[in-house]
Parts: sequence; structure tokens; C-alpha cells
Amino acid sequence: MAKAITKRTENYSQWYLDIVKRAGLADHSQVKGCMVIKPTGFAVWENMKDQLDRMFKETGHVNAYFPLFIPKSFLSREAAHVEGFAKECAVVTHHRLMNDPNGGGVVVDPSAKLEEELIVRPTSETIIWDTYRDWINSYRDLPLLINQWANVVRWEMRTRLFMRTAEFLWQEGHTAHATREEAMEESLRMQQVYADFAEQYMAMPVIRGVKTANERFAGADETYTIESLMQDGKALQAGTSHFLGQNFAKAFDVKFLNKENQQEYVWATSWGVSTRLIGGLIMTHSDDDGLVIPPKLAPTQVVIVPIPKPGPEIAEVAEKLMQALRAQGIRVKFDDDEKNRPGFKFAEHELKGIPVRIGIGKRDLEKGQVEIARRDTKEKQFVPIDGAAAFAAQLLDDIQQNLLQKATKFRDDNITRADHFDDFKAIVNATRPDQTESWGGGFISAHWDGTTETELKIKELTKATIRCIPLDNEQEEGRCILTGKPSNQRVLFAKAY
Amino acid sequence: MAKAITKRTENYSQWYLDIVKRAGLADHSQVKGCMVIKPTGFAVWENMKDQLDRMFKETGHVNAYFPLFIPKSFLSREAAHVEGFAKECAVVTHHRLMNDPNGGGVVVDPSAKLEEELIVRPTSETIIWDTYRDWINSYRDLPLLINQWANVVRWEMRTRLFMRTAEFLWQEGHTAHATREEAMEESLRMQQVYADFAEQYMAMPVIRGVKTANERFAGADETYTIESLMQDGKALQAGTSHFLGQNFAKAFDVKFLNKENQQEYVWATSWGVSTRLIGGLIMTHSDDDGLVIPPKLAPTQVVIVPIPKPGPEIAEVAEKLMQALRAQGIRVKFDDDEKNRPGFKFAEHELKGIPVRIGIGKRDLEKGQVEIARRDTKEKQFVPIDGAAAFAAQLLDDIQQNLLQKATKFRDDNITRADHFDDFKAIVNATRPDQTESWGGGFISAHWDGTTETELKIKELTKATIRCIPLDNEQEEGRCILTGKPSNQRVLFAKAY
Repeated sequence: MAKAITKRTENYSQWYLDIVKRAGLADHSQVKGCMVIKPTGFAVWENMKDQLDRMFKETGHVNAYFPLFIPKSFLSREAAHVEGFAKECAVVTHHRLMNDPNGGGVVVDPSAKLEEELIVRPTSETIIWDTYRDWINSYRDLPLLINQWANVVRWEMRTRLFMRTAEFLWQEGHTAHATREEAMEESLRMQQVYADFAEQYMAMPVIRGVKTANERFAGADETYTIESLMQDGKALQAGTSHFLGQNFAKAFDVKFLNKENQQEYVWATSWGVSTRLIGGLIMTHSDDDGLVIPPKLAPTQVVIVPIPKPGPEIAEVAEKLMQALRAQGIRVKFDDDEKNRPGFKFAEHELKGIPVRIGIGKRDLEKGQVEIARRDTKEKQFVPIDGAAAFAAQLLDDIQQNLLQKATKFRDDNITRADHFDDFKAIVNATRPDQTESWGGGFISAHWDGTTETELKIKELTKATIRCIPLDNEQEEGRCILTGKPSNQRVLFAKAY
Repeated sequence: MAKAITKRTENYSQWYLDIVKRAGLADHSQVKGCMVIKPTGFAVWENMKDQLDRMFKETGHVNAYFPLFIPKSFLSREAAHVEGFAKECAVVTHHRLMNDPNGGGVVVDPSAKLEEELIVRPTSETIIWDTYRDWINSYRDLPLLINQWANVVRWEMRTRLFMRTAEFLWQEGHTAHATREEAMEESLRMQQVYADFAEQYMAMPVIRGVKTANERFAGADETYTIESLMQDGKALQAGTSHFLGQNFAKAFDVKFLNKENQQEYVWATSWGVSTRLIGGLIMTHSDDDGLVIPPKLAPTQVVIVPIPKPGPEIAEVAEKLMQALRAQGIRVKFDDDEKNRPGFKFAEHELKGIPVRIGIGKRDLEKGQVEIARRDTKEKQFVPIDGAAAFAAQLLDDIQQNLLQKATKFRDDNITRADHFDDFKAIVNATRPDQTESWGGGFISAHWDGTTETELKIKELTKATIRCIPLDNEQEEGRCILTGKPSNQRVLFAKAY
């Protein structure tokens, strides 16, 4: 068997990389910063996408597709936007290669220079709002509720598979509204959709909050976020929903005739989640034996293993079990490979995170039973064959619940209140050698004076940033953790991915 | 109401553009050659994609995702491949913009030049085979049956929405096999999958054939194609499946250990269909009143219109009807918009190609009936309310069948045998003012001497190319239509999109 996965207590980053590679989720490519999403990883993304797409459609959205390329001049129209994206983008300057007249192979044809450079979209607000100008004339054309599934490129120097790559897959919703209120409602609605998806499907608890001005999306008036906590005590921004005000409508001159027959700029939102969620999934649930994945998103939910090897009797029982499971919509596989022994297979299935394993042994069959093991707790038990399918189906629900409970407890256990900066630093700098080799400190709930200056100073001193101001915050009088200035609510700090 | 659609007898290209724009399928973007796929057009693509994806998975394929960018040097590894794609590609040369120190706005940062230029993928054989080298070691890793849904870019100068655009959406299957036979089987299997999809879902009859050497994919040993005939007598290459031999395995050094313990190059296929199919769909079925779309792919299959306007009684009947239709998996909408009158709505629904319209009138309700109209033949009839859902469901099947039959008859009526070059030219140059303003001539079945020279000469003289050598060809002694040299089978010529 191949070498074991690095332990989390030894090297958390390496553990993560081992999981991603060994579970067949993704791989580095020869193109700097770009990843290859392997079939198992892509199957997880497909399951996520299918569910999210359903939720978007249930909330009235339709899909469309806009160009990959954005003319350079479009980026510049919104001042904050260009500031945010110009520094890390792929620029197309030519449209042809040619044979080097000096015999140097294939080179760029200098005569095929573009009049205006094109940027590979890092996000599509600009090209979409340029299009919306033609689509929106009157209040009758609103709201416009459109989503796009697409690839985007941000030229990242320090990459990590799924978490941060130059190219990634995502969805981006771009909606247009007649009023400020409607647009604000939409931003919050989609933040809630993301929160529901994270908790109900990914079994990943999230805190809904609003970003500080400093952490806002480039071009937004408000950025709403869902923040989750990884096993190593670092936060992950899992999804964002932006209230864009009239910024892009003004930049691209998108007006509508309102009911009072007056021209008015359109109100906008945008919102997105990406393949980054797969990274969050891994770092929320997996263990030293490999991937742990919530049943609702698992490409294979149940695997049946013959012990010690396939035979007609076992195959017959397996076939019936598979039919019963598939009838309930459960994704099941029969691992009848003859090359490998059960022990090897068990380890492989654990590594790949298949939630439930059913072992069918010759001797067990004589007793009319099979062995059912769950991936999350590693518990095993014998179950009568007749009830096995129902048992496994129930077990999938239990695992889904258990993963959410466990992750929620972990998250809640790692939100610490701090009222003095020394305590703050102690929390951020604490180690947890029992958990991971690198410990982020979890969330810290502390008072802040509301200025970007203080926020940046705390970041400089501790590497912790304000992840969000929770939406369900209670008002509480207090003093800023750094400056001692008055504050009326706590915000959440953390080191973040 | 907006102006009518251009008639096909007046200007076929303009008719096509009118349909695409007025039915809300797609639009030109500000980025040269790139299109915006609008919600209705994208919904058609989603229906196509869902069904194709199902068919790919049923034939054992899984999805994955590979990088958007291809290092320039990769393209050059396969000689024919670079020849085919280098002349029309988007080249990324820089990774950052900056503020012009001379105040000229945002410009490319010259210090951010890439060491090696990246090409935006025109197709992914090179990046994928570079990856497969790491994935394939032994015959146990084969076959590798992978598909990718992606956007690709080919720098086209003369574009037409859906038919030919710089960026388009497609799927590309890339499979690896241990033997020549297996790879050949796979190529033919996927050609058959495409043919089944075209006929059973798009109601678009196709001829399966093999391309001549001159028309082959750049890097393939054989290209299998499905060819269809548009209403204007021009052919459309609707999908291709390539037997790549060991060309890419050799270019990227992908070997495997065979059962005899010997290193051997891997055998490959690739196959793809694109958003071009939507163009084919339009030009196969639509008429002067707008889009006609086969029920299986229609975003909305049935629309219910209240006559003359919505009311509680009508709404109740409509609600029940919708429930009954949805229970059968039929996509139905109730057009209860109060702004527009029935006549306007009828025209809109015809324009958008909704296959079945159910009109519910107040007076009809008293008689216990509704009016059901089919988009394809424009026939209408009164049907008792109780049987309306079942009637509409059956009608959708009938329409699907009728569209295929009609298109098949048109195609078969327009395959002409030619045995003399004068006849050949007469067919190609014939006009059909009753059909379209520009008539392509249909398919011509003729003998050919098998040389690229003759093929190119015929193209030069007539603009007709060899679309394919049909797979079900009968052997027949004859003489080349141009050179008179001996030939033992007919091939299909046509002017093509």
C-alpha cells in the first residue's frame, strides 16, 4: 500500500495536500497556479452545483452566459473595481502565433496585436452591466435575476488546491432592481441561501455577517459573508453576497424609466461561491485516515465490499442490496475488484471518504447478516440482511447530522471572547499540538472602534482580520480591544485562509 | 408590437439573426466575436447538456476539469495540431495592469510579462495528454473515459451567433485506451451517441460518416462526423468524434505497461459537440413566425393563456391543469400577465417556439373545454378540460415525432445524385426562391477519385466540400465527378456552414 497520509498534528498543510491528491480530488497542472479537478473532485462539485442551482431557481433566478473576455477599458470604469482586480489578471494581447522566421519554433505574431487588450474575467460585473444597459429600459424589465456558472482567473502567486488557484470555477449571480430596498433584500436572501446550503448540505456551520469597509468587495457598498471555521482554527470566507448600490449602473450608464416616468439608475447585487467550498468541506470534516464527506454531497454514498472475495452468492446479495438502495436514490457501488484484498479496499474507501461501507462475508451470510461501518465515527455493527438497506439509508442521515453537530460544537468551542489585547494575542498565538501542527486561534469576539486604521494595525500585530460583524449581534457597550475607544458591539476576528 | 421577423425567402441570414435575437436566445457582446447567451438560449443549452451528460455517463464516462490555459510550447508538440490552431488563438502575455505613469489610464504593466505565453484553449488535447502522463502507468489504469464541459476560444473573424463565435461552450471527451481496436470502438460509439441525441432529442436527422484526410481534425488519424442539412440546403457538421491513434501519446510521452509487461504508447480518442447545435436546431425547424423547438429541449413546453384576461375561474382551471402537467414532468407556464392581450401573447409564444399553447376562454369554460394549439403545424382544436393534460402530453410526443419526420423528409428530398460535373454545378448553383433567398443545393452524392487535389479543385470551382463518406455506403463502381478516374463509392458533397 502507498504511504499513509501526513497527520494533522505533524503538518496540517501537507495533510490537506495529501487528502486532495490521494482521494483523487485535484492535482497541480503544468500551468502555474491552475489546477486539474479530477473525476472524484469534480463529482463533488457537480453535486454542490446541482443543489445550488436548484436553490437559485427556486428563488427565481435563471442562468445565462457572458463572455470570458473583458475589454481593458471596462475594468477601469468603476474606480474601486479596477483597483481590486488590475494587479492580478491574465491579459490577452495577441490573437495569432506564427513560425519564428529565425527558426525559434512557434512565437507570437507581432502583426496580430489587439487594438485593445482583453482581460480574462476575474469576475463579470463590468461585462454584464455593459450588457444590462441594452436589456433594461423600464421598471417592467426589473428585477433581472441572472446567474452564471463560469471559470474565472485571478493571478495568484501563492496557491493552494481548491482554496486559492489562478483559475477556479464558480457561480456569480448578478441582479438588477428598481429600488435600494429590493436590492438589499436580494443580497441578504442570497447570503441566507448560501448559509442554508453550507449547513444543510456541506454540514459546515457558518456565521452570517457583514464585512468591514476594508474587507469589502471592490465596487460594493456592502459585502455580506458566510464565515466558517476550519479544523486548524483558521477562518474561511465561504461565500459572499454584495450590495452594489448604483455603482455599476452609474459606471455603465444603466438607467430605467420608473413608475413615475423618471429615469433612474438601477440598483445591483452580485454573489458568488466557488470550488473553494471543496477546500472548506475537506478542512471541516476530514481526518488522518482521509476524506470525510457529508453523505448529501458524496459521489458514492455506500460501497459494498465482498469478504474475502467476490463470489456468486455474495454478488446476488449485493445486487439486491444495491437495487434496494438505488430505489431510495442512494448512490452505491459494488467493489468486486479481484486484485485487492478487503483490508486494502477498506483503507481506500476510508481515504476517499465513502460515508457507509457494507461488508458481505461468507460466514456472515450464513448468519443472515452483513457488517455496516460508518466513515465518520468508524463504528461498525452487524445488521440483518433484510434490514440492511433501510439501516444504511438511516445511517446516511445520521452521519449528515453528526457531521454538522460535531463541526458546530468545534466552531462554538472556538469562539473566544477577548477584552484585553494581551488576551487577544495569547489566543491568536496559542498552540494546540493535540489538534494541528499550526493552530489559528479560532474566532475571537472583541470590541473594535470601527476604524480601518485600527483594523489594519491589529492585522499587522497579530495577522488576525475582522471576518465579519455578525448579523445577529447583540448591542453591548465596550471598549476597542486595541485603542480603548468606545464601541457598542463585538466583531469576529480570526486568522483566515 | 415590434416588427415582424424577416422572411426566409427574403434574407435567410437576417431571418436567422432575427430569430436568435427576438426569441431571446443570444446577443452580440461588446467583445468582438463573443456572444452573450441569454436566459432562454441558455435554458436550451442546459436541456441539451443534461441529456448528453446522462448519455455520456451511461456509456461509462466521468467529468473532470482541466486548465483554461495551455503553455505555448504544448501546442507545438503535435505538428498537425499546432498548424490547425496557432493561427486563430487568444494569447496571454502579461499578468498585471498598472496606472499609466503618463496619465493614459490603465495600461499593461511591462514588468509583468510571462516567461512563456499562454494560449486560451481552443481544444484541450495537449493539456490533457500532458496530465494523462501522470495518471496512466499500467493497463489497469485504462481505459480512461473522461469528459469536460468547458468554454473554448478560436479567434474567428467572421462570426455568426451560435454557429461560429470566438468563444463557445462545448464538451470535449478525451479517452485513453490500451488498444487500437478499443479506441476505434470508442470513437464510433460516441459518434453514435451524438447521432442518437441529434435524432431523438433535437429531431434533427444526421448522416454518420467519416471525414476525408483534408477535413480531418488537426492531429487525428480519422474524424467521424454527424452531418445534417439546414433548411437553406447547406450542411452543418453537428458533432465530431476523432480517432487520434497514438499521436498525442507520442507527443506527450504517455506510455503504459501492457499485460505482457511491455511499455507501449496509449491509444486516444476525442469528441465534442458545442453550442453550435443550437444554431442547427434553429435552422432545422423554425419558420417565418419564429422559433420552432422540439418539445424535449424546449425550456417551456406548454403555456397556458387566459382569454381575454386572467380571472379567478380561469386561474383555478389553469392551476389544476398545471399540476396535472407537472405531475408528468412537463414544463409549463401560466401567462397571467395583465398588460398584454391574447393576440400579442400568442405571437410572442409562437416567436419563442413554445410547442403547445392552451387557451382558456370564459365562454369555452362554460362548454367545459379549452383550446389547444400546436406550434409546429399551427393546428388548433377544442378539447374537454378533463382530458386536456393527457391530450397536451400526447401532443408533445406527436410534435417531437412530426418535427423529425418533416426534417428527415426534407433532408432525403435534398440528397441528389450527380454523375456529371455539369449536373453537379447545376445543383450547387440552383435557386429555390420558394424556400430561401440563398439556397445551398443540399447534399450531392457523387463519385470522387479519393485525392485531396480533386477535393480542393471541386471546392474551388463550386464552394462545395466533401462533408463525409457515409458509414453505410454501398460499394458502387463509378467515375470521379471531376477527373473521371475510377471510384468505388459515392461521397456526400455540400456547401457547409
